[in-house]
Amino acid sequence: MDQTVIPSTVEHTRSVFPEGLTLDCGSVLAPVEIAYRTYGTLSPERNNAILICHALTGDQYVAETQPVTGKPGWWERMVGPGKPIDTDRFFVICSNVLGGCMGSTGPRSLRTVTGENGVSREEPWGTDFPPITIRDMVRAQRLLVKQLGIDRLFAVIGGSMGGMQVLEWAATYPDMVFAAMPIATAPFHSAQNIAFNEVSRQAIFADPDWHGGRYWETGAIPARGLAVARMMAHITYLSEEALTRKFGRRVRRGDEPVAGGATPGALSTFGEIFEVESYLRHQGSTFVRRFDANSYLTITRAMDWMDLGMEHDGDCAGPFRETRTRFCVVCFSSDWLFPTSQSRVIVRALTRAAANVSFVEIESDKGHDAFLLDEPDFDRTVEGFLSGAAEHAGLSSRTLKGH
Amino acid sequence: MDQTVIPSTVEHTRSVFPEGLTLDCGSVLAPVEIAYRTYGTLSPERNNAILICHALTGDQYVAETQPVTGKPGWWERMVGPGKPIDTDRFFVICSNVLGGCMGSTGPRSLRTVTGENGVSREEPWGTDFPPITIRDMVRAQRLLVKQLGIDRLFAVIGGSMGGMQVLEWAATYPDMVFAAMPIATAPFHSAQNIAFNEVSRQAIFADPDWHGGRYWETGAIPARGLAVARMMAHITYLSEEALTRKFGRRVRRGDEPVAGGATPGALSTFGEIFEVESYLRHQGSTFVRRFDANSYLTITRAMDWMDLGMEHDGDCAGPFRETRTRFCVVCFSSDWLFPTSQSRVIVRALTRAAANVSFVEIESDKGHDAFLLDEPDFDRTVEGFLSGAAEHAGLSSRTLKGH
Repeated sequence: MDQTVIPSTVEHTRSVFPEGLTLDCGSVLAPVEIAYRTYGTLSPERNNAILICHALTGDQYVAETQPVTGKPGWWERMVGPGKPIDTDRFFVICSNVLGGCMGSTGPRSLRTVTGENGVSREEPWGTDFPPITIRDMVRAQRLLVKQLGIDRLFAVIGGSMGGMQVLEWAATYPDMVFAAMPIATAPFHSAQNIAFNEVSRQAIFADPDWHGGRYWETGAIPARGLAVARMMAHITYLSEEALTRKFGRRVRRGDEPVAGGATPGALSTFGEIFEVESYLRHQGSTFVRRFDANSYLTITRAMDWMDLGMEHDGDCAGPFRETRTRFCVVCFSSDWLFPTSQSRVIVRALTRAAANVSFVEIESDKGHDAFLLDEPDFDRTVEGFLSGAAEHAGLSSRTLKGH
Repeated sequence: MDQTVIPSTVEHTRSVFPEGLTLDCGSVLAPVEIAYRTYGTLSPERNNAILICHALTGDQYVAETQPVTGKPGWWERMVGPGKPIDTDRFFVICSNVLGGCMGSTGPRSLRTVTGENGVSREEPWGTDFPPITIRDMVRAQRLLVKQLGIDRLFAVIGGSMGGMQVLEWAATYPDMVFAAMPIATAPFHSAQNIAFNEVSRQAIFADPDWHGGRYWETGAIPARGLAVARMMAHITYLSEEALTRKFGRRVRRGDEPVAGGATPGALSTFGEIFEVESYLRHQGSTFVRRFDANSYLTITRAMDWMDLGMEHDGDCAGPFRETRTRFCVVCFSSDWLFPTSQSRVIVRALTRAAANVSFVEIESDKGHDAFLLDEPDFDRTVEGFLSGAAEHAGLSSRTLKGH
């Protein structure tokens, strides 16, 4: 396994908040730095801002080349001039989550510690980074939004863990959210999803290069454990249908496909591999070059603690009483990680809270990842919801190009 | 992690076949030893034998205490006097699969190797153990069945990988199988299931104690990697509903449940854990005391290669042309590892082959593991199929107790 570490030479645009944040766990985290990107132009009325919230391993590079990987932004097909989230019309903000590893404060950030000899030094937080929640991520985003001079977001949009942030935004700062689109998400993390996250964490803990979380001391990273975690998670992002369509039972030897499929003569326990295996290995080995293991631990934990009903006797409608936010809840028929049933729980809760809510289940065989992939029905849903909400918000329909 | 190894003091009943077997890969494996257990009495006509095939991590101890773990046999609720597989009436055989680690020849078995100095010594096969297929497992079982003096099995029954063996029995030795019951299985391993198996294997490879498969040289076993593999696999054996019912979002600290669920005040990334996590950790840590990592690699590979249509241009009906075996295909509605759709492929193939086939989908929310758990509808299905088939086979309906 390649022991590459994340290049420290990449400079991310960020804002520093010296006063920091009081977290759900009770600790004060200060300072807090939030790395972010914006696209489009903020209107003079400051009423056309859309906050996009990224998923577990996403980042702020929504609609431009990611500087670490050199790959296109993760939602370029959705965000840009003339696209469903139209940057000719809207001002788009996306920040790296608190606890992340792409410039925002997280376990890789340096803090000052005082050694036994009384001498202070800087070292990464590592596993001493305080536990954070999805709501803590939202609190950090709010600092940024306020600093950008925005009192109310036109919309908050996100999929998967991004959708959890959308829900926490609407629950915690209802007056700051005109429209909310939680996509492929859940009001609380299910036992099955906690279980998958726990296996990911155990894979990282099992790697001796994790080194109790202090891997910066050795120069190596727990690449094998993190790769196993990613490989497993990646299966949950796809559907059985998608895996069958993409790979079926095709085999390859080395880099070459093998004609005719697996044959007894070619059998070997460790040699010839199925294409789906080659794909997963690639997913694992590229992931470890861009993601920090301690961030993975911190963020998966934040997802596990997600529970909208926690402070309302288990009633997920509790946080939404008297909300005036307009909701559009979106899910995908073949998503088994955040299945339609969990989106229905959100819709029922919002309905009980008398919220303005629409619900769209997109027919797709692409699984959870469908929100990142080419699904024209989904594009139309996003564009339609934003257009309708913009009309109700009294936003000018003209573009802001050239402002 | 406890570094316990499997006690070598346990003596398993076994038969030795010095001539061995020619495997699908072309290698000759000799000698072959098969560890097995029997229950009940073989009728004078030798026509009442039922072969039970075990799943990936199962063993021959179907209906009695497992000598390594001290736990009850894995199918005691199904097999015994007066039970659905009635040992007062039938002679039940179960053998540890070829490649396994409970007494049959597998990667832990010793072989003679000649060192560079020309001196011969005995050492385990390890990763040099030849790749085996489900059909190779069946070939080994046939040696045992023949040695027991049985020319035709009244029935072959098994779930999951056991069901794959049932299908290969009927495909390869149709004249030796009067009735076949493949349960919760598939005619070929799906891309998703190959993917899960591959993550299991990568977790084992990632453990430095795996030591390239030669862990017997160090005295340690790759317990962490094998535990991660088991934890992940265990999630796939259950359903989301079963996990929610059993664990939901309940938390515990140490051995104590925490009242009121996860609360922000109690948050810690590495402290308080959800009950589902505690359960999975237990599954992982107990598994490594009874299972060999190289066997896990070998057997998961055998499952991946399972493909009934492989030698018939992809047509799964191919192996069953002119079969006279009576089939009952069983699956469980909430099984997402071997879903109903895969059993339907088997049923359609058997139907195309003009076989005598019935199909039962049991309504259950217990997931893949349902075939091992208390499902009265399933018990009635097994009992009913065996009774009907016994009548057609002309078996005496009296019990053989006392023979």
